[in-house]
Amino acid sequence: MSFARLREEVYRVNMEIVEAGLVVLTWGNASGLDRAAGVLAIKPSGVAYDKLRARDIVIVSLATGTVSDGELSPSSDTPTHAEIYRAFGGVGGIVHTHSTYATSWAQSGREIPCLGTTHADHFYGPVPCARRLSDEELRFYERETGRVIVETFRSLGLDPLDVPGILLPHHGPFAWGPSAAGALANAIALEQIAKMAALTYAINPEPEAIPRNLLDKHFKRKHGAGAYYGQPAAGH
Amino acid sequence: MSFARLREEVYRVNMEIVEAGLVVLTWGNASGLDRAAGVLAIKPSGVAYDKLRARDIVIVSLATGTVSDGELSPSSDTPTHAEIYRAFGGVGGIVHTHSTYATSWAQSGREIPCLGTTHADHFYGPVPCARRLSDEELRFYERETGRVIVETFRSLGLDPLDVPGILLPHHGPFAWGPSAAGALANAIALEQIAKMAALTYAINPEPEAIPRNLLDKHFKRKHGAGAYYGQPAAGH
Amino acid sequence: MSFARLREEVYRVNMEIVEAGLVVLTWGNASGLDRAAGVLAIKPSGVAYDKLRARDIVIVSLATGTVSDGELSPSSDTPTHAEIYRAFGGVGGIVHTHSTYATSWAQSGREIPCLGTTHADHFYGPVPCARRLSDEELRFYERETGRVIVETFRSLGLDPLDVPGILLPHHGPFAWGPSAAGALANAIALEQIAKMAALTYAINPEPEAIPRNLLDKHFKRKHGAGAYYGQPAAGH
Amino acid sequence: MSFARLREEVYRVNMEIVEAGLVVLTWGNASGLDRAAGVLAIKPSGVAYDKLRARDIVIVSLATGTVSDGELSPSSDTPTHAEIYRAFGGVGGIVHTHSTYATSWAQSGREIPCLGTTHADHFYGPVPCARRLSDEELRFYERETGRVIVETFRSLGLDPLDVPGILLPHHGPFAWGPSAAGALANAIALEQIAKMAALTYAINPEPEAIPRNLLDKHFKRKHGAGAYYGQPAAGH
Repeated sequence: MSFARLREEVYRVNMEIVEAGLVVLTWGNASGLDRAAGVLAIKPSGVAYDKLRARDIVIVSLATGTVSDGELSPSSDTPTHAEIYRAFGGVGGIVHTHSTYATSWAQSGREIPCLGTTHADHFYGPVPCARRLSDEELRFYERETGRVIVETFRSLGLDPLDVPGILLPHHGPFAWGPSAAGALANAIALEQIAKMAALTYAINPEPEAIPRNLLDKHFKRKHGAGAYYGQPAAGH
Repeated sequence: MSFARLREEVYRVNMEIVEAGLVVLTWGNASGLDRAAGVLAIKPSGVAYDKLRARDIVIVSLATGTVSDGELSPSSDTPTHAEIYRAFGGVGGIVHTHSTYATSWAQSGREIPCLGTTHADHFYGPVPCARRLSDEELRFYERETGRVIVETFRSLGLDPLDVPGILLPHHGPFAWGPSAAGALANAIALEQIAKMAALTYAINPEPEAIPRNLLDKHFKRKHGAGAYYGQPAAGH
Repeated sequence: MSFARLREEVYRVNMEIVEAGLVVLTWGNASGLDRAAGVLAIKPSGVAYDKLRARDIVIVSLATGTVSDGELSPSSDTPTHAEIYRAFGGVGGIVHTHSTYATSWAQSGREIPCLGTTHADHFYGPVPCARRLSDEELRFYERETGRVIVETFRSLGLDPLDVPGILLPHHGPFAWGPSAAGALANAIALEQIAKMAALTYAINPEPEAIPRNLLDKHFKRKHGAGAYYGQPAAGH
Repeated sequence: MSFARLREEVYRVNMEIVEAGLVVLTWGNASGLDRAAGVLAIKPSGVAYDKLRARDIVIVSLATGTVSDGELSPSSDTPTHAEIYRAFGGVGGIVHTHSTYATSWAQSGREIPCLGTTHADHFYGPVPCARRLSDEELRFYERETGRVIVETFRSLGLDPLDVPGILLPHHGPFAWGPSAAGALANAIALEQIAKMAALTYAINPEPEAIPRNLLDKHFKRKHGAGAYYGQPAAGH
């Protein structure tokens, strides 16, 4: 089994996070999951984006975390991706970047409040900021980063597909979705809503959160049984 | 009747709002009106801009709001466009985006004050911010969004061609003009004056509004009977 | 006499202010002077930059302000350019834009303080902000705009080649230089120092101005008899 | 000896600081060192980047500071580069720019605190800001600029390869690395962390510095004996 299609999709999304301006140097990685095959595909560690080829994408076993196929070492963040895939059943793709505005919110240690419909179209409420890791947890840094993401969603009672992303304090954002392409769209949206939230606070230091009725209207216009945005043929 | 020319113009303006940097993902749509034929032409809903073709533009009856010609579903914002065309006689094109700075002002819930001649060349006074919709109005969200735009202009006594745009709180801007191309220019201007207004407040938290004499001078240099900007052959 | 070379240079600088990101829509114009021939060359009014050709550049008599050669109407700002050329002997080119950060400083009504060597390399001290025009002066808006620029430099005792630019309140910047290309470089520098000054104040609300000794060092490293920056063959 | 390879590398890095958006006009220069040959290679002074060719790169003796090979005058900042190479044994490349955010921090007179892992991946702690030069030191401006950089690192007890850059007050940043390419990566990182630090303070005026354990984890993940980021074949 060559995983050629999965590699190609994950390669493409890795290149698109660069084209979308979310990545400086090598600060980012995208992965995709083949849940039936029990593997994830992810960018190799520290490879410059202008040198990356589809065949460099590394295939990693979800169960063991070891390389199933590929000649390079996977991203050092692979254990974080694996924890998210193991805990969040509907997730099929993950994007991690140090995109400018989302990282600045992460560095501020604050969740991104939901201030408008751009946010509500992708995230059904604030984008949470996780807690810090303890010294003990830092010994298994990447794995524990994934576990604290899962812990945050469980303690807040959030569905990870309703709020497909999180901020890690002093670090940056992770975004995900039903597929690698879906994760990419949510990562782009997250950076843009982070930028607009920062600007909104600069204009009005005490903006009101989006009213509940408008939040529900916009999220449900695009998601779930009553969705009517987009083309019927496209499935939603 | 093929509406090929109207489709082509509306297609081009939809592509130009992307090229001008006003649109991220699919957050935007442009329309144009053929008032004699009683139809508007608008972007299909949820179609990625890099896949959009002129023939995908949907023709919608202004009277009934139903599709007159085209194979795709029109933008979910079509009822908003239709309300604006019905109420504002001189409007021939509408552009809706979630452009970064105009959306940030909309999220702040504040009108954009007129601070300089860049603003005065396109908008004859502050760009207003509409009121929120009630729960009842949200049941017919897109139609009522159009109606609250019209209500705002009537209650403020504003001519929609003197102030060709508005902010919707917790949402973003709509801009319009005598044609789709005119709406595009006003949407670009709105984003730029929103950006410069935010920066002006950052530099000086209490800037003075443009003096009345300079506002009149600049708006009238470009608009109305005494206009002398541009080439005589071009009409003004 | 065809003025082909002057037209070509002025055309090129007009295109470069767009490429440098200083111009949105048609908000900008550049001119150049042939002092021996007594004419200035300037962009035609309201012509879109992507349609502009070198032969559209309009030749205007410096003495009378009327068109000497060309088929289009000159920029409505032509009388401002002419006043500057008449009063400032060493000036050979002028660039007017509504570039984002310089315009935001102009809208704030404040001079740009000299905070660093980037500023000192081009402007020997703060970039001044002119006074407002009176109602009477607004009757001859463009001419009086030029006159208030000259008045500002005379009342501050500034040499216009030491400080090759100014802000007009509620409007935007003018920059100039010994040639149209020199004016372009100063306009680019002005926008960049305006941006960095705004950011400096955001980081530290009370930054210190550049020390006098460093200001002198940097300006004189590039300008005047003791200059040693650049290649000897290039004249300085 | 032609120094063709060194010239080519230094030429390429000079072009890449422009492509990375770190340079406006001619405000920047990069150099590389051949420590065995006792020479540095650097951009010529005041040459426009779009005219620069690899053969224009000037070869300068590290011992005497005079031109060893090349027809143009070296960057006026050459004595600063030479002082850094002489004092910091492991440095093989230096990049100086007036990049927007790093320069704004320099103009604010403040060090850049370490707020997150993006910073910690490249700089092991705050990026320091040097002291001002005295009147006497300004007589030998470029040489003394290099000496105050060295003095800053010695007085703070910093290893220049742990913290590969500095801010000069009222001026801008210098960054370095084991090679010209390494200096380029650190210059790009410095601008990006300067931008994110400014935004973090705008969102939260009192952000916490990165916890010590996370700083150590990230820096050591990429640097030193225990590093595990990147591909084993690539050496770390």
